[in-house]
Amino acid sequence: MTYRPPVREHLFLLREVLEIETLSNLPGFAEAPMDVVEQILDEAARFCAEVLAPLNTVGDKHGCVRGSDGSVTTPPGFKEAYRQLVEGGWPALGAEPAYGGQGLPSVVNLAFSEMSSAANMAFAMYPGLTHGAYSAILAGGSDAQKALYLPRLASGEWGGTMNLTEPQCGTDLGLIRTKAVPAGDGTYLISGQKIWISSGEHDLTENIVHLVLARIEGAPEGTRGISLFIVPKFIPDAEGKPGRRNAVSCAGLEEKMGIHGNATCVISHEESVGWLVGEENRGLALMFVMMNEARIGVGLQGLAQGEAAYQAAAAFAKERLQMRALTGPKNPTGPADPIIVHPDVRRMLMDARAVLEGGRALIFWTALHGDLAQRHPDEAVRRKGEDYMALLTPVVKAFLTEKGFVIASDALQVHGGSGFTEHFPASQYLRDSRITLIYEGTNGVQALDLVGRKLAQNGGRAVMTFAAEVDAFVEANRVDAALKPFVEGLAAVKAQLQDGTMWLMQNGLANPDNAGAASMDYLRLFGLTGLAYMWALMAKAANGRIAAGDGDPFYAAKLVVGRYFIERVLPDAGAHLARIKTGAGPVMALAAEAF
Amino acid sequence: MTYRPPVREHLFLLREVLEIETLSNLPGFAEAPMDVVEQILDEAARFCAEVLAPLNTVGDKHGCVRGSDGSVTTPPGFKEAYRQLVEGGWPALGAEPAYGGQGLPSVVNLAFSEMSSAANMAFAMYPGLTHGAYSAILAGGSDAQKALYLPRLASGEWGGTMNLTEPQCGTDLGLIRTKAVPAGDGTYLISGQKIWISSGEHDLTENIVHLVLARIEGAPEGTRGISLFIVPKFIPDAEGKPGRRNAVSCAGLEEKMGIHGNATCVISHEESVGWLVGEENRGLALMFVMMNEARIGVGLQGLAQGEAAYQAAAAFAKERLQMRALTGPKNPTGPADPIIVHPDVRRMLMDARAVLEGGRALIFWTALHGDLAQRHPDEAVRRKGEDYMALLTPVVKAFLTEKGFVIASDALQVHGGSGFTEHFPASQYLRDSRITLIYEGTNGVQALDLVGRKLAQNGGRAVMTFAAEVDAFVEANRVDAALKPFVEGLAAVKAQLQDGTMWLMQNGLANPDNAGAASMDYLRLFGLTGLAYMWALMAKAANGRIAAGDGDPFYAAKLVVGRYFIERVLPDAGAHLARIKTGAGPVMALAAEAF
Repeated sequence: MTYRPPVREHLFLLREVLEIETLSNLPGFAEAPMDVVEQILDEAARFCAEVLAPLNTVGDKHGCVRGSDGSVTTPPGFKEAYRQLVEGGWPALGAEPAYGGQGLPSVVNLAFSEMSSAANMAFAMYPGLTHGAYSAILAGGSDAQKALYLPRLASGEWGGTMNLTEPQCGTDLGLIRTKAVPAGDGTYLISGQKIWISSGEHDLTENIVHLVLARIEGAPEGTRGISLFIVPKFIPDAEGKPGRRNAVSCAGLEEKMGIHGNATCVISHEESVGWLVGEENRGLALMFVMMNEARIGVGLQGLAQGEAAYQAAAAFAKERLQMRALTGPKNPTGPADPIIVHPDVRRMLMDARAVLEGGRALIFWTALHGDLAQRHPDEAVRRKGEDYMALLTPVVKAFLTEKGFVIASDALQVHGGSGFTEHFPASQYLRDSRITLIYEGTNGVQALDLVGRKLAQNGGRAVMTFAAEVDAFVEANRVDAALKPFVEGLAAVKAQLQDGTMWLMQNGLANPDNAGAASMDYLRLFGLTGLAYMWALMAKAANGRIAAGDGDPFYAAKLVVGRYFIERVLPDAGAHLARIKTGAGPVMALAAEAF
Repeated sequence: MTYRPPVREHLFLLREVLEIETLSNLPGFAEAPMDVVEQILDEAARFCAEVLAPLNTVGDKHGCVRGSDGSVTTPPGFKEAYRQLVEGGWPALGAEPAYGGQGLPSVVNLAFSEMSSAANMAFAMYPGLTHGAYSAILAGGSDAQKALYLPRLASGEWGGTMNLTEPQCGTDLGLIRTKAVPAGDGTYLISGQKIWISSGEHDLTENIVHLVLARIEGAPEGTRGISLFIVPKFIPDAEGKPGRRNAVSCAGLEEKMGIHGNATCVISHEESVGWLVGEENRGLALMFVMMNEARIGVGLQGLAQGEAAYQAAAAFAKERLQMRALTGPKNPTGPADPIIVHPDVRRMLMDARAVLEGGRALIFWTALHGDLAQRHPDEAVRRKGEDYMALLTPVVKAFLTEKGFVIASDALQVHGGSGFTEHFPASQYLRDSRITLIYEGTNGVQALDLVGRKLAQNGGRAVMTFAAEVDAFVEANRVDAALKPFVEGLAAVKAQLQDGTMWLMQNGLANPDNAGAASMDYLRLFGLTGLAYMWALMAKAANGRIAAGDGDPFYAAKLVVGRYFIERVLPDAGAHLARIKTGAGPVMALAAEAF
């Protein structure tokens, strides 16, 4: 069973739900009419299905190998696939035209990202991290730094990494100890050890550009004393070619549960030469520019692993013959019925579909607001775009990664015993997907970001705007009989979210532990509300096509899956609200020593 | 961090909740007064913590190795640990005195099983499977078979396996193709290939007794034509010593996501010599005697992995310093606070505790009813014991394995990035636990067993008896102010369960897909109700001790965790009930081709 990129779903979202053609007056969108987008996505699908997907198992089984000289060899086939990736211009899809990119809306680039992550997550992380480095330099680099690095990162000719974590600090970057000492010539000498550096060292590119957080000698303690540096593996010479080897190296590879095809490195800086990006002691802010974008990407990875796992499970369920349907044989001439006839198997597949299709819409819708924030001429639209991006980034990251993992686990369950063996892809999807709940800020950190920062920002403007938008949709569509269950479901869950929001406002300030204890349930309730809104938008679009006489069964199926979401996924909202309202009491009552 | 067996929890359950000392008039219980039980459990805890637990990682990393001759070598240290296991008499704990066993109540043996499974699940599966073979022969073997095999299996001197699955059949054992041809001397020649055979071949014992399902030439098709055979690896000679090598061998080892220390074999029978157990064509019934017992054991494995994972997470959370508490520094002299101060970390640990402690009680309570079914002089008590065992076995198996997996996943999450590496035990617990949702009947099969068979058996006698027992408890304790939240929570969830049961009765017969679509949510609702009842019993026992002036903080903690269960775990019940009542409609609406 090969992964089939869901291009039809992408086109439905872009064309009929988000209607990106109405934005053709905006930069980037002008260059991407739907027929061009469709060609791009078809070509992307071919590349991901035919080149990347077949290497997914290879990467898992072989992993990366570190030589005694610190070099890292990627799994067989990765190098050639990477060459094709660069040649196809895929890394440049969403980069700025000024640096050789194609400048397409990020919402279009997202479709490619989903496909490549689903086909081969460990592989896709190499260009993924490169894009992170690109974004950080774009956000804070000098003109010279931009001119030197951005074209090479945009094309994928050079790789990039983010050097954040150290043994004593993951979430708590204020504890960073890596030191930067001015060398006197404008550069810095960086010393320290970084761990869990994805794509930290490899044989795919002729150079690797490390973005490194470090503390300049004498800088203030904590997060206010951290600066960001560019540390290239090979220091570019006057012509911008990789020159002298820098004192940055891979001291070891991490043994991990999954994503074996990605080199997760211990990176050692022994007076490596670094160039400051932006101002001294302002490194964290720059890092968060990159991080927010990366968090949407991680939500997408979770979704992508769920999609690939779902597809494998659906294919297995249609082939595996075992027992008869409860309502009588459906394959009477065979020895047994395909297990997809069993309602509990169907339940797991439908759970997956309902969340994947709604979740994909939420990511795309959020990313479109990111595009609007950057490209729209109207300040109010830009501001709303920024608000939504800020508000929904933690929701997309945490809700969709944990759902992706549950879907991968259910997909494994559909396989029965076969799922637990490594002869089927189910185990790898489960193992690979698990990291998405952790990196780029654990899901708990996302939940705290949502309730502790994003809700309150600008006097709660973002969440109030979102609530008003949902209310307006509900009002405008109440009379639409075909949309009734969607509008009612949305109105109900939005009321629950509002109830939870009010509770947080009233109780979170009085005792911040109330906010902390409620945070994950609040985020999940937000996720359900977001998906309910997306399902209402999708159902409206599907209804429109059906009313217009479009007989494509895609639209009828969309409504069936949407109804499933409303009837069988949304009921979780009540439990989340009930838990929010327990407050910190039961959560914090047991003394730490009693654990 | 070493696994610490929760002996205090076991003693609380046995002494104060189940009050097994009141049963000292029953066989087995008479030999196990609480002071003796306490000694046994202390010794068991020492063995599991000091001998088995240190080999858990070793087993995961080394796995089993198959030689070119089909021999299988277990991981370093397993053989010596197994020798100590047998020498300590641990496998004999729950076996019949007639066959060299100690005849202890299974509820006592369960405590040992939990500890050994938590310490080293892959290892514990070797004696676990042996006990399965023991049970099948005990249930259906001839006197000669019992005399020959049971003492050697009871002691652990010989190992045992269950040869059920074949490539074309896992759940659907009616599709078995392995053939048995009468040899003319009372034995049969068995031919066929079995897969996923746990403990199928190894170097721990001088002989291995395979219990094999096969079809005697000319037997009816389907499940009515399957017989059970004993196929010893070495055919016992006249003195009962391992003699001639039988034609049964390991043709390969399965590559798996977890339980690497257990040899999961492809077992090849090439006219192996087998002895019929019980009657021809009645093999499945015998296998289910064993299987029902095994299912409780698998529920216990799920719980045990959850417990071990929880302990590792709690230890990590108390040591790892990262960020400050929302309410101000708790470790002001350190660089940061231990992460256990963060409410969302605490939430995951409390979720684990609430389910583990309640789940352990449910397993012990169910197993005690199994003991009563076998040992009590009063027929009504025996019948109730049988009813409860039958009713709750699928609940214990499915609900506690899926909860165990969720706990293992949360425990990994508490570790942050460390959890995804193989330097901490979190990944192994997650990977090992995943099989428990699948083997001995997938959780979906358990749910169908519950709604399709167990509910309706004897006119619904079991579920009505259980409901009446809960009602009686609620009535008897309504006036107890200290127990109020527990009694109210229990009454509420029991009403939801009853509502769901009624819905199933009214809609399940009309359309069996309604029952199938509701089955997993119904099982989960049943699990929550069972745990609510256990928590009420435990709270009552704890209140009693506190009222009696016992100052052990254990009891106060028990009440805190119980309150958490009622306030923050039980709210899921409403979502389950809502899903039950959607019926098959949304689940089955999408055509199979649309997946």
